[in-house]
Amino acid sequence: MLRVAVIGAGRIGKVHAAAVAAHPQAQLVAVCDPMGTAAEDLAAVHGARVYKDADALFADPEVDAVIIGSPTPLHAPQVLAATRAGKAVLVEKPVAKDVEEARALDAELATFEHPPVMVGFQRRYDPSIRRAKDLIEDGSIGDLEQVVIVARDPAPPPAEYVAVCGGIFKDMTIHDLDEARFFLGEIVEVSAFGQKVLPELADVDDFDAAVVMLRGADGAVATVMNNRRCVTGYDQRLEVHGSAGSAVMDNLRPTALSVNTAEASGSQQPYLDFFLTRYADAYSNELTAFIDAINTGAPVSPTVSDGVAALVLAQAAEESARSGRTVRLDA
Amino acid sequence: MLRVAVIGAGRIGKVHAAAVAAHPQAQLVAVCDPMGTAAEDLAAVHGARVYKDADALFADPEVDAVIIGSPTPLHAPQVLAATRAGKAVLVEKPVAKDVEEARALDAELATFEHPPVMVGFQRRYDPSIRRAKDLIEDGSIGDLEQVVIVARDPAPPPAEYVAVCGGIFKDMTIHDLDEARFFLGEIVEVSAFGQKVLPELADVDDFDAAVVMLRGADGAVATVMNNRRCVTGYDQRLEVHGSAGSAVMDNLRPTALSVNTAEASGSQQPYLDFFLTRYADAYSNELTAFIDAINTGAPVSPTVSDGVAALVLAQAAEESARSGRTVRLDA
Amino acid sequence: MLRVAVIGAGRIGKVHAAAVAAHPQAQLVAVCDPMGTAAEDLAAVHGARVYKDADALFADPEVDAVIIGSPTPLHAPQVLAATRAGKAVLVEKPVAKDVEEARALDAELATFEHPPVMVGFQRRYDPSIRRAKDLIEDGSIGDLEQVVIVARDPAPPPAEYVAVCGGIFKDMTIHDLDEARFFLGEIVEVSAFGQKVLPELADVDDFDAAVVMLRGADGAVATVMNNRRCVTGYDQRLEVHGSAGSAVMDNLRPTALSVNTAEASGSQQPYLDFFLTRYADAYSNELTAFIDAINTGAPVSPTVSDGVAALVLAQAAEESARSGRTVRLDA
Amino acid sequence: MLRVAVIGAGRIGKVHAAAVAAHPQAQLVAVCDPMGTAAEDLAAVHGARVYKDADALFADPEVDAVIIGSPTPLHAPQVLAATRAGKAVLVEKPVAKDVEEARALDAELATFEHPPVMVGFQRRYDPSIRRAKDLIEDGSIGDLEQVVIVARDPAPPPAEYVAVCGGIFKDMTIHDLDEARFFLGEIVEVSAFGQKVLPELADVDDFDAAVVMLRGADGAVATVMNNRRCVTGYDQRLEVHGSAGSAVMDNLRPTALSVNTAEASGSQQPYLDFFLTRYADAYSNELTAFIDAINTGAPVSPTVSDGVAALVLAQAAEESARSGRTVRLDA
Repeated sequence: MLRVAVIGAGRIGKVHAAAVAAHPQAQLVAVCDPMGTAAEDLAAVHGARVYKDADALFADPEVDAVIIGSPTPLHAPQVLAATRAGKAVLVEKPVAKDVEEARALDAELATFEHPPVMVGFQRRYDPSIRRAKDLIEDGSIGDLEQVVIVARDPAPPPAEYVAVCGGIFKDMTIHDLDEARFFLGEIVEVSAFGQKVLPELADVDDFDAAVVMLRGADGAVATVMNNRRCVTGYDQRLEVHGSAGSAVMDNLRPTALSVNTAEASGSQQPYLDFFLTRYADAYSNELTAFIDAINTGAPVSPTVSDGVAALVLAQAAEESARSGRTVRLDA
Repeated sequence: MLRVAVIGAGRIGKVHAAAVAAHPQAQLVAVCDPMGTAAEDLAAVHGARVYKDADALFADPEVDAVIIGSPTPLHAPQVLAATRAGKAVLVEKPVAKDVEEARALDAELATFEHPPVMVGFQRRYDPSIRRAKDLIEDGSIGDLEQVVIVARDPAPPPAEYVAVCGGIFKDMTIHDLDEARFFLGEIVEVSAFGQKVLPELADVDDFDAAVVMLRGADGAVATVMNNRRCVTGYDQRLEVHGSAGSAVMDNLRPTALSVNTAEASGSQQPYLDFFLTRYADAYSNELTAFIDAINTGAPVSPTVSDGVAALVLAQAAEESARSGRTVRLDA
Repeated sequence: MLRVAVIGAGRIGKVHAAAVAAHPQAQLVAVCDPMGTAAEDLAAVHGARVYKDADALFADPEVDAVIIGSPTPLHAPQVLAATRAGKAVLVEKPVAKDVEEARALDAELATFEHPPVMVGFQRRYDPSIRRAKDLIEDGSIGDLEQVVIVARDPAPPPAEYVAVCGGIFKDMTIHDLDEARFFLGEIVEVSAFGQKVLPELADVDDFDAAVVMLRGADGAVATVMNNRRCVTGYDQRLEVHGSAGSAVMDNLRPTALSVNTAEASGSQQPYLDFFLTRYADAYSNELTAFIDAINTGAPVSPTVSDGVAALVLAQAAEESARSGRTVRLDA
Repeated sequence: MLRVAVIGAGRIGKVHAAAVAAHPQAQLVAVCDPMGTAAEDLAAVHGARVYKDADALFADPEVDAVIIGSPTPLHAPQVLAATRAGKAVLVEKPVAKDVEEARALDAELATFEHPPVMVGFQRRYDPSIRRAKDLIEDGSIGDLEQVVIVARDPAPPPAEYVAVCGGIFKDMTIHDLDEARFFLGEIVEVSAFGQKVLPELADVDDFDAAVVMLRGADGAVATVMNNRRCVTGYDQRLEVHGSAGSAVMDNLRPTALSVNTAEASGSQQPYLDFFLTRYADAYSNELTAFIDAINTGAPVSPTVSDGVAALVLAQAAEESARSGRTVRLDA
């Protein structure tokens, strides 16, 4: 049994804690959060120890791995401290607060031996997205030509959060950018349009919707469509078009029931509207892959380098949206 | 060009007239209806001659074929008169007012040479139903085991019509019974439940909804579900289950658009709600088959014998629904 | 925390053990199975105690509730012994080996005070089926008129099992019969057609496919279509037709991906093919309802009387299929 | 009855001829094509007169309206000649061979009185696209925010055609650009990525796939995804996202049947793969609108100015794809 600690007892920390508690090969041994009683509350649910201080946690020899769900500015330093203490690390996105810090982290990690470090782009472990990837890799739908990623959140975060989140591309689009790389490999060109559509975010200096085109080194093009608000729920779709066919991912609903009335036919319920529900399987599969990497030395995916690459794309998208120019990246 | 006349200028007559007018191998030369100005009005649309009397029409040497859409009691006598006059005939269902008259007609037609006589079960020419049949015949879904036919009308006819229509099984279910035979071949057992669900037909001595089980000679079982009223439109569905797979026919809608709102996702418009719209392709294909039978001697489907068999099943369903016994038929 | 024991460490026992282990208000404290090391193996997974003998288990004061997943002939005696020992009981279907034993059990349970006894028709707790029921109960789709239940298993059990299972109606259809009662209430008429379609079961004196019509006291009619084999997976569908609309339950698939190639469009993976996967949420919700009944005195559903009624319907369906008569039941 | 002539007896000319022949308010009186016996062959089908020379046709007083489906370089001169001769005109896209010629045409048409001139962007008359537009206009899905247009042809034209077609944006994307304007109104920014994915077009100096982002004056963004080849058929989809909901247009298939086997569930046939089949209703509705404009003075849509605007967008997309810059347009 892998002894796992979770840092950060907020929304994403709770998801990871529950996934660890339910996993047959892992046990949740500690929760760390300096704020209020968050750590205590979460630890109590799972019978885990409490740490208010991450360094104390890293010093605990009874912890094999840590999952870092703390605020973004803490990601890079905590990854370094944890790996230096010999812990395996699964760190939430983004891997660092900006490209420079991310690159420095990646470089530093290359200088010493440490257990696996994995970045939390959980969509790579979603069964539908994974199957789409398999269909390309096994040639079922031919050579990859075009990808469409639609990701629209049910409702925007509070304006105060948006104001400090680093911008929509680093905060929200970054998942889509990693997903685009998952299919296209290295990206060589980025062009983005930002939009402001939400009255409640009108005063924040950030886009609340965006469309991004990305060209891969092999010529395939991915398009990302983001919106901070989708009234029907959490709109998460994917189209992968190859030379011999295509794969299309629909949204998930809470039931398999559709309703027919005098007004409409085939009406289903709104989409699952919470990312934890929509990606429950993905988080569980991600944890399994993390454990496998630790136990068997299986390669990690996504790596810190993948985390760096996603940040580079987010920065390029921001630059393109602001400048009106296509940004070219060194492959 | 086949010179075609239509007898009966009512709802179904207009459908046939339009199908003939649009067909590249046929022309509408005459319309016959004794009532008011119906024949005149329909003939004017298509530039056709008018007959008030069917016998005069049958005497017209410039007419090659007649489509009989007159009231049911006239079907059998008009089929005989028309074939005796050397006309090919496409007659609407039911082929006669009852089993006895239908059998007599079939027997009489066997006594002399005449052009093709075809019965208007147009569903046999519906592209979806035809494809389901092909999948069984070419072995794609294995041996036929179970069939489900759902047929629910948008709204009931007037109570006055229902009172004299001969009962739901002969009037409405007969299409489903022929469809069941289209897949199962000869039927050996029938069990039916009749229902009364419509307040507006409460005083009529007839069922307004029904479920019928039919067993084919080869052991496959078909289930028919009927209702005189479906608020979402004309509910026309089919399931064909074989040992190696199944085929399911969905309803048609007027557009390919679905709508997502805060209340529901994937909502489509109500089903096409008029049988002429739903089966427009079927009527056109039926006419082509009729013309082919005339021009090339291709076998007719469905035949008058098929029309007799459907009436036998309707009578058996009525008997079962009234008696609570399964009715066994001689194969 | 409710202290739960599971009797029977076979397929269904493992499902319940896992559901208990994962439930926040329950803990699995014991497993009982006399055969081989089944109890030991299952208990080890969850850290539970082992009993080889059910009476010893019932004597354990540290057990609050038992879930009975033993062979059918043991159901009734174990329910009685457990309730006499003061344990709450969730018993798998059928509640007894035949109608007589089931009625005797129900009568006996009425003679003394005991904790809740619930019968394991888990479909009543499936989110889709529950939503269909809600739509009828809240009037969204009007008055109930017709129901269609399709239940086709991925593959037949071994011939040896089928030979002793009590017949398809008690073994398989019984779930559908309870589902029909869930929507229609008391049933007054039953007519059934049995079929033999599977070569591998040709020598067993039992039907391997069936269609059943059931009429409710209020006039609504339900149709059940069963087949022991469906090559596409576990085909579990439902249609509920009301006077103001209808609800249709589709199958579940492992991913939300559909594939388009030169041969076909919209192709999804086969249906989930295992009842534990398909009804995972139902088993979890069923357990919650059981715990609520124990903790709060909430009414149990389904009751032992419901279990009796389902057996009565299974017996009536068998009689109808064998005799070719509609069986009338006293309401 | 409107007396209509068709210029150009090629693929699109045949479509228009058939639509006119079938229309209750129009009759096909003449066909004009200088090449071989194309005009004779098409005229014979419909019993129309033949012209080899367009000017002679324009001089025919028995012609009320002309539908111009000649090669693109002839569009503008023929529109002018026809309108000067007092004929109403429906001209295929693009309205002229380039932006300059199109603007000159538009300006010249403003200098004299003439019957209606309409441009053949038939998608504006597709029932699904029209319904999506209605849902925005009547507020059902709120304010327009994002649009996705997918248009992928079943197979590329011959390389010789592609080499002289004026480029993918003017030849193929122009329909999507008009569709984007149909929803967004005036476009102020265009950014495009061109791709080369087809081996058979590798030697032609043109893109064979493309993605285009367009920003409307009101801030909404449309994305167009084009591909000259889609193995599953003619992939024609649309998503319209508003602040209160969205509308999604699926592809059409030849039947309503889906198939379930051991390998896949829900498999439908490939999409309708010919634009004439897919847009049959649109061409018919377009003709009705044209006739209405002539008969009642109803406003024309799309106008020659719309044709100019689409060409401007095609030119901007080409410029962006070649330069890697977002092109800004004067509103």
